[in-house]
Order: sequence, then structure tokens, then C-alpha cells
Amino acid sequence: MASSSKAVVLLSGGLDSSTVCAVAASKGREVHALTIDYNQRNLWEINAAKEVARVNRVAEHLIFPIDLRLFGGSALTDSSVELARDVPLDEIGKTIPASYVPARNTIFLSLALGFAETRGASEIWIGVNQLDYSGYPDCRPEYIDAFVKTARLATKMGVEGADIKIETPLLYLTKAEIIKLGTSLGVDYSLTRTCYDLDDQGRACGRCESCLLRKRGFEEAGVPDPTPYR
Amino acid sequence: MASSSKAVVLLSGGLDSSTVCAVAASKGREVHALTIDYNQRNLWEINAAKEVARVNRVAEHLIFPIDLRLFGGSALTDSSVELARDVPLDEIGKTIPASYVPARNTIFLSLALGFAETRGASEIWIGVNQLDYSGYPDCRPEYIDAFVKTARLATKMGVEGADIKIETPLLYLTKAEIIKLGTSLGVDYSLTRTCYDLDDQGRACGRCESCLLRKRGFEEAGVPDPTPYR
Repeated sequence: MASSSKAVVLLSGGLDSSTVCAVAASKGREVHALTIDYNQRNLWEINAAKEVARVNRVAEHLIFPIDLRLFGGSALTDSSVELARDVPLDEIGKTIPASYVPARNTIFLSLALGFAETRGASEIWIGVNQLDYSGYPDCRPEYIDAFVKTARLATKMGVEGADIKIETPLLYLTKAEIIKLGTSLGVDYSLTRTCYDLDDQGRACGRCESCLLRKRGFEEAGVPDPTPYR
Repeated sequence: MASSSKAVVLLSGGLDSSTVCAVAASKGREVHALTIDYNQRNLWEINAAKEVARVNRVAEHLIFPIDLRLFGGSALTDSSVELARDVPLDEIGKTIPASYVPARNTIFLSLALGFAETRGASEIWIGVNQLDYSGYPDCRPEYIDAFVKTARLATKMGVEGADIKIETPLLYLTKAEIIKLGTSLGVDYSLTRTCYDLDDQGRACGRCESCLLRKRGFEEAGVPDPTPYR
């Protein structure tokens, strides 16, 4: 039977998911962390995820490889697609950016659902965010609600009455609020990586949308930014 | 922009999905076949899928590896889980069998959705079946409807107004009706594989649920069963 004390946490190793992992651990969940290694450009994220999992003393950390380059179609999985740079902050979120990966969160939540069911967990935690969501359709609350309905119909545990939940503690927080929340829980953001274009020493570019949102978040939170920039 | 003439077909190489591939091709679709190689016990299915794709002259056939053994929890992905044998036919479908793979169709449809979006296709074809569905929750029409709603919210093409559809031409057919349909379209069922426990020469066991349903289907259809049994 699925247990509400067990939770799968989708942990990319970025700022948001690392905060979510700390929140789930602080709520007493037995955390089964799942990192999807989808051959994104940012391989440093995987190392960051391992560190975050270790620090949060998760019950299990599974790194699941899946080669989304076979599909292509995104700046994160296809080197022929250009990432946007130096976009004005007030333009971010108005259109779907080149970093959009087709159906990414649906693929990730589906894998998390399969993983959860084998572990007897009925909760999946994910760091989606509506306010700073950078224009991704699969970070909206109506999308999450639809996925939960699908998950309840899709699974043996759902048919048997498990209360499948997707926990999105960051959904309505600004990046600054996320950073304050994580800081209050002791998250070491120097471990996390967010940049879409880290160099081979794990240093951030400071110019992609992800960097721009992260930088502004630290400024607005009044927390020193520990990110190594090149 | 997504095109309704392009379709992703989930092609396992089994009887059902091979029939679906033939139906999509017969309706004039430009077929982008997607075979998920999930390290199931039945590796012969992959070879069957290649043959079926070739015969149907698909535009593209992508074999996508994903190691669901990392999750385990099913007789198809975990050698410690026993398959049921010689189950009375009227018992099949009353409970969810050991061959259930947690969240399998959600994972497969999510991957198909990502693939479809990169190819500009708004249709996904899948061989789910309600009548002979063997007790899998993710073969029911209400599940498919929920997934479509999720897909429309999940994707850039959905946000931009593409009419995302999941085509399930076998949903209400019996196995015998599926075999008659495929036979009328020239499907060569000797190419297809269905058994959960093929031997190393690709011969079927004749005793697992999948074999029992397939055998009965040929009998009821009055079509000679070309399946090689051991």
C-alpha cells in the first residue's frame, strides 16, 4: 500500500528542486530522490543533485538516464538550437523560450509516478513555479492538476484508492521567496547549479534566462549570491 | 505548426500495435513509429517492430531505450517477480496481473508526446484495448481522455492551439476483431510477437496471459494462428 510518509522528489540539482528536496525532508518525508539525466547540456547539475541528496540524507537517490537528444527540438537537448541571451527580465515569461523541452515535465512526472509506485510512495514533489516560470506551459497549476487526475487513473495504486498527490511547494513563490525559504532550511545554494550553459568548471554564464532569474532572486532576497560566475 | 497528417505510432511489435500501425498507414498518415526499448524480457518484440515498420513504409522509426529495470516492480522488468501461467481465460482482466508495469502507458505516451511535438505531429496512435485489456488501468478510455487533457496543457503546441489527439482504434474491439481488421489490411501476424516469455528463437510459451488471449483471438476470428509456439 502506498504510504504518505514516502515521497519521490524530482531533483535536478538546480536551485528550485534543491529547495523542494529540503522542504520534503523538513516535513519528515522519507525521500526517494529521482534525477533524470537527459543528456542536457548542463552535466554539472547531476553532480549538484548528488551533493544535495547527500546533504539531505535521502533514503535513496536514483539517477535515471534518458536520452532526449534522440528527439531534439530544444536548446537544452539539441546543439543546433540557440539559447536566448541577455533577454530583458520583463520579457521573460511572455513567450515560450528556446530552452523549452517538449513534454519534459510530463515525461519526468511519468517516470516519477512509475518510480513512486514501485516504492509504495503516493507523493511526488516537484519544483515547478508559476510566477518565475519562464513561459513553460508545464509549470502551470492547471497542468499539474490534470496530471494528478491522469495519475490516479493510470496506476494500480490509484485504482486501489491511494491518494496520489503532486506537491508543488514553490508554485506561487517568487525566486526571492524560494531562496529565503531554502536559506531558512539550511540549503547551501553554492552546491546547486541553474545555468543552462555552465563551463567545464561548473561556472555559470550569468546571461541565460535561468541565470538572470537566479541573480535577481538573490538580490531581491537580500542573500549573498554564492553562484560561481565565469 | 503541428500537422494532422503526421502521426506518432507507439509500436511495440506486438499484435495490437502492429495492427494500429497498419491502420494509421492505411488512413494516409505520415507515420513516425516509436518503439520504447524498456529492457523488457521480450527482446524479440524489438525485431518484430523493425519488421512491421519496414513493411508499413513508415517515414521514421525511432527505437528509444529506457531502462525500467531501474524501477523494477513488474514481472516484465524484474526477474524476481513471477509471471502468471495458465490462468483461466475468464479470470483474465478481473485483477491487475503481475505483468502490470507501473505507469507504463503514461511513460510511453509522454515520450510519444515529446517525440510528436518535435516532429510537428499532433496525433499519437496507441493500441490500448478496453475489452481484452487484461486488467491494466492505463488501457481504459477514461485514462486516455485524462492524458489528452494533460497533453494539451503540457505542450507548446497545445498552448498554441494544436488539436492534440490520441487515436485508439482498437479500444472497443475484441482480440478476434483486431485480428480480422489487421488481416483485412494485410498485416502479417507471423512477424509480430506478443508472448511475455519468448525463448531465444522467438517462440511463444503459449501459456502466459498474453499468449492465451492471442490464441483465443485467432480461434474466434477463424484465422490460422501463425505464431511459432515452442
